Amino acid sequence: MEDKLSALRSLMVSHCPPLDAIVVPSEDYHQSEYVSARDKRREFISGFTGSAGLALITKNEALLWTDGRYFLQAEQELSAQWKLMRIGEDPAVDIWIADNLPKEAFIGVDPWCISIDTAQRWERAFTEKQQKLVQTTKNLVDEVWINRPQEEINAVSVHPLKFAGRSVADKLKDLRKKLLQEQARGIIFTALDEVAWLYNIRGSDVAYCPVVHAFAIVTTNTAFIYVDKRKVSVEVQAHLVEHEIEIREYTAVSSDVTLLATDELDTISTVKRANGAHQAEENSNSLIWADPGSCCYALYAKLIPDSVLLQQSPLALAKALKVNPVELDGLKKAHIRDGAAVVQYLVWLDKKMQEVYGASGYFLEKDSVKKEKHLQSLKLTEVTVSDQLESFRASKEHFRGLSFPTISSVGPNAAIIHYSPKAEACAELDPDKIYLFDSGAQYLDGTTDITRTVHFGKPSTHEKACYTAVLKGHIALGNARFPNGTSGHALDILARIPLWKDGLDYRHGTGHGIGSYLNVHEGPHLISFRPQARNVPLQSFMTVTDEPGYYEDGEFGIRLENVLIVKDADTKFNFGDKGYLSFEHITWAPYQTKLIDLNLLSADEINWLNSYHSTCRNILAPYLDEVENAWLKKATEPVGA
Amino acid sequence: MEDKLSALRSLMVSHCPPLDAIVVPSEDYHQSEYVSARDKRREFISGFTGSAGLALITKNEALLWTDGRYFLQAEQELSAQWKLMRIGEDPAVDIWIADNLPKEAFIGVDPWCISIDTAQRWERAFTEKQQKLVQTTKNLVDEVWINRPQEEINAVSVHPLKFAGRSVADKLKDLRKKLLQEQARGIIFTALDEVAWLYNIRGSDVAYCPVVHAFAIVTTNTAFIYVDKRKVSVEVQAHLVEHEIEIREYTAVSSDVTLLATDELDTISTVKRANGAHQAEENSNSLIWADPGSCCYALYAKLIPDSVLLQQSPLALAKALKVNPVELDGLKKAHIRDGAAVVQYLVWLDKKMQEVYGASGYFLEKDSVKKEKHLQSLKLTEVTVSDQLESFRASKEHFRGLSFPTISSVGPNAAIIHYSPKAEACAELDPDKIYLFDSGAQYLDGTTDITRTVHFGKPSTHEKACYTAVLKGHIALGNARFPNGTSGHALDILARIPLWKDGLDYRHGTGHGIGSYLNVHEGPHLISFRPQARNVPLQSFMTVTDEPGYYEDGEFGIRLENVLIVKDADTKFNFGDKGYLSFEHITWAPYQTKLIDLNLLSADEINWLNSYHSTCRNILAPYLDEVENAWLKKATEPVGA
Repeated sequence: MEDKLSALRSLMVSHCPPLDAIVVPSEDYHQSEYVSARDKRREFISGFTGSAGLALITKNEALLWTDGRYFLQAEQELSAQWKLMRIGEDPAVDIWIADNLPKEAFIGVDPWCISIDTAQRWERAFTEKQQKLVQTTKNLVDEVWINRPQEEINAVSVHPLKFAGRSVADKLKDLRKKLLQEQARGIIFTALDEVAWLYNIRGSDVAYCPVVHAFAIVTTNTAFIYVDKRKVSVEVQAHLVEHEIEIREYTAVSSDVTLLATDELDTISTVKRANGAHQAEENSNSLIWADPGSCCYALYAKLIPDSVLLQQSPLALAKALKVNPVELDGLKKAHIRDGAAVVQYLVWLDKKMQEVYGASGYFLEKDSVKKEKHLQSLKLTEVTVSDQLESFRASKEHFRGLSFPTISSVGPNAAIIHYSPKAEACAELDPDKIYLFDSGAQYLDGTTDITRTVHFGKPSTHEKACYTAVLKGHIALGNARFPNGTSGHALDILARIPLWKDGLDYRHGTGHGIGSYLNVHEGPHLISFRPQARNVPLQSFMTVTDEPGYYEDGEFGIRLENVLIVKDADTKFNFGDKGYLSFEHITWAPYQTKLIDLNLLSADEINWLNSYHSTCRNILAPYLDEVENAWLKKATEPVGA
Repeated sequence: MEDKLSALRSLMVSHCPPLDAIVVPSEDYHQSEYVSARDKRREFISGFTGSAGLALITKNEALLWTDGRYFLQAEQELSAQWKLMRIGEDPAVDIWIADNLPKEAFIGVDPWCISIDTAQRWERAFTEKQQKLVQTTKNLVDEVWINRPQEEINAVSVHPLKFAGRSVADKLKDLRKKLLQEQARGIIFTALDEVAWLYNIRGSDVAYCPVVHAFAIVTTNTAFIYVDKRKVSVEVQAHLVEHEIEIREYTAVSSDVTLLATDELDTISTVKRANGAHQAEENSNSLIWADPGSCCYALYAKLIPDSVLLQQSPLALAKALKVNPVELDGLKKAHIRDGAAVVQYLVWLDKKMQEVYGASGYFLEKDSVKKEKHLQSLKLTEVTVSDQLESFRASKEHFRGLSFPTISSVGPNAAIIHYSPKAEACAELDPDKIYLFDSGAQYLDGTTDITRTVHFGKPSTHEKACYTAVLKGHIALGNARFPNGTSGHALDILARIPLWKDGLDYRHGTGHGIGSYLNVHEGPHLISFRPQARNVPLQSFMTVTDEPGYYEDGEFGIRLENVLIVKDADTKFNFGDKGYLSFEHITWAPYQTKLIDLNLLSADEINWLNSYHSTCRNILAPYLDEVENAWLKKATEPVGA
């Protein structure tokens, strides 16, 4: 660890100008949340393996910022050289720099790894002390990263229309309409899921995300993709050419953006247009559109500031709305198959917990009959059981892999919100402790994400009270009806109120959008307590998770998560003619009734639970065998009489 | 009406530079919500009598902006010359000007009637088309206002320590500590309630608000009040002099702010300091503090921009926190006496409605036995009954007047959110229609504000369902517990969720702070659905109303309002060590159980209602006679068995 930091500090000194500090964000050139192995620069330099964080290395200090999901994990993983900065409690990195680094300090950053928004916010914070954000021409972390993984050459695939539901031609048509509306003659796409969605392609360049390392530029006349051509098969090439998409090398994006800025890009196009009709319209359009939240500062620097339209990408919303029936239907079907896999897992785990550990099991609430010794080969660990969960999923139609690293966590580990067990050092299952699993998969027809929390022995009164409070929040949010224009931020409190009643809370948001065989976290909306979080109104056909939790450090963690679809609500009235919205659950797996204190549920909540369980039983039945169906029937028995 | 507008337009033309438009805000020189008769310029020019609104007169158009509370009323009051602009639906005034007035247009405004914040926001909106906000040297509306009321000479009074609870000396000491913290050498107060609160004085310059038309300046050494000296009695003068407050003429504030800007104000002070000790400390402080939301642009223009600290006044929060036990106790006692007056009113009204109209009354749910003719002298109107309500209040100890114009409204009038009945043209009470009254009083020990909605005949199923939804929201908000740091904006949704379930909503905020024998609307906090509304976290000892409603245009209106005090919650746990808060109701009057559909209430809601009613009965008993107590006992019988 020391070697890396000293090596980096030497490069900072020899840099021109010499740097007082260097910022190492988690993101790759595409502002991705999950990145490929060779792009895990922040993890390499800091040792912290969580998905979100930012490292700052000064001459004497090394600091790592991360959010509430990762406080415990970061404490465990960071060496003594590092100081943990807690987002929401400690000052933000730009404020810290302005307050703590000297006047006129130079702060280096790789401009490919930072968004326009972030760079500009930092620059504003730095002006007070005439500090300067320096764009390094090389990534200094890469320079000191001796065994940096090679770029993998993963084949690109076409995402067939029977899953995508909408053709590239139609998507490009919609997009060019938006360009005309905004008086833009071109747009740059850097977000990997936007490129994949627009061109109906998929890949495997980033673990868990079926995306391709690629950029795209679309003008009123032309469309380009920037991708390592070795990844493009003849079939994919034919698909792209059919849609008049020009294939250029990944690195060419840099010079092509320069050409775009001066309106010369179309001249290099070699693709024959089926139709030159667009051309007449675009002459009055002069802007280049870039999404300030996802486009990197390096590309922005090549544009003429006055001619840039800094505005959220039109694909963010287009992609979020699962409005085409093929995509919506696929998403629902994928969730049913996924729910069946989760039930199969629970059946298997219930049996194993009784066999191996003498647990009273999923249904009974008794102390386990401890078996003194059990064969090492039978031992269940967080990793071995999650492998079993993966194999149940893998048996399902259209399975393509997991959608994120499975969180499989026993007892205190469940309190680490984004815990990721390691095979060599993970906990053993325990019939006397809560077990939480948060997992999902990529299917050709949809992406899933579900969390359940279970106990195979005798949960404490406190654990039940907490589980019930989390469930009440989960139900309250899922059952909300609200007028058009309401943001996820406004709804967030509904999931917390039952916890707040007892002075409990959780340090993470309550919901995120989910892709269609794409990223498991998808904007532009969010359900979050942070007022500064994307304040985008929810709309019909958005997907969003409903995942409140409660975490007691060193003891246990609880989280319940379903995916919801926003839909028009069938309200009796329509005050203000705004139209009202509601949610539809599309995730199907039982809640463990043993963990619920029914005295704390209202009649309405009990009715909802019984109705959800009844649907669960019916909808999953075709995917389960007799034993599994019998188990599910028992797990979904109506409660509360 | 035409004459006024033409006269004003002539002045616009002859102004130097000639004005393309003039803005006439509702506010006076102190950005007051309620203003004196001679300050009702916007009402004079537009004919719209609501408390909130803004008029814009261009060469050819006259537009009036107001908010959802006033849409119906404005439609009724505005002549055909005027166009109603609905805040929240139509573009804001600055955006409208930027979009609709020509390039380089001159827009006039009296800089005494506009806050720094507003002026600067408008100026930013105007830059795009090089439009200019012109500060008129005279108020052009005053010029065309022939019979403008004279300034009244209302005596100032000292607000005794037994009600204020904290001495001027202590308040000045706290304030000067804040000045030092913020490196300010002086601060300007323009908000009337801040001046009254700081100097423990009251007046009657504005109807319903016990304030004095005055400014104040406080420096680390000196304190000034700017007030018409004819209002200052020898007793008040002695009180001010005792606290080393210099009395200056109202108009002198202008030149004194100029002196303050150049640090020469202290030199004109003639008051002998008891103690010159402050003087040593302040030399390093160089800023002048002005609240951008309340300080007028005219005074700001006299300061040196680089030396101004634009930040919320420290008195906003100090005044909002009823942390001193004298003030808190007074507020609670005033609310008990006020609740007794409300019950006496309901008893009286119940009897009269049966006598005069053959109503089945407050308790019975039967059709009224219509009496064909009744004596004109017995007739009950919205105004005559509200006079009776006032007389019940006037009989209570420490009564000083109403805290705002009573909203006393029958049937469709109740759907006009801020309806104000006029004696000459108001509705008659009707046993078959809902009656809503929203009213409050000023007592020496506290200000009150309460709304109840009642029916003296047979309410419809729909009216009951709506009343119950409003009550559910009222209870949900009042019962919330939440961590420190939570804003009223986050809580607002709790009051709406039960309405949203049926596609219902209301077009106003859910709560406002309330003064201590001061303004009935008091910041800095709010409970509002607007994210841009003051996003101030709620704190222990703040007051806030809880007043959801539902309004069906042309039919009826429902609102329920109690005053709450924020207090520390006694939660079982304290996750995140943030400390949790809850509310305490301090308003006492029954909800009409006849209007509640008990099937729609949860067990918890019924328990809360019964417990509130039981306290109500006990706490009001000493203030009621035998008949009234018997009535209240019946009105507060436990429901739901």
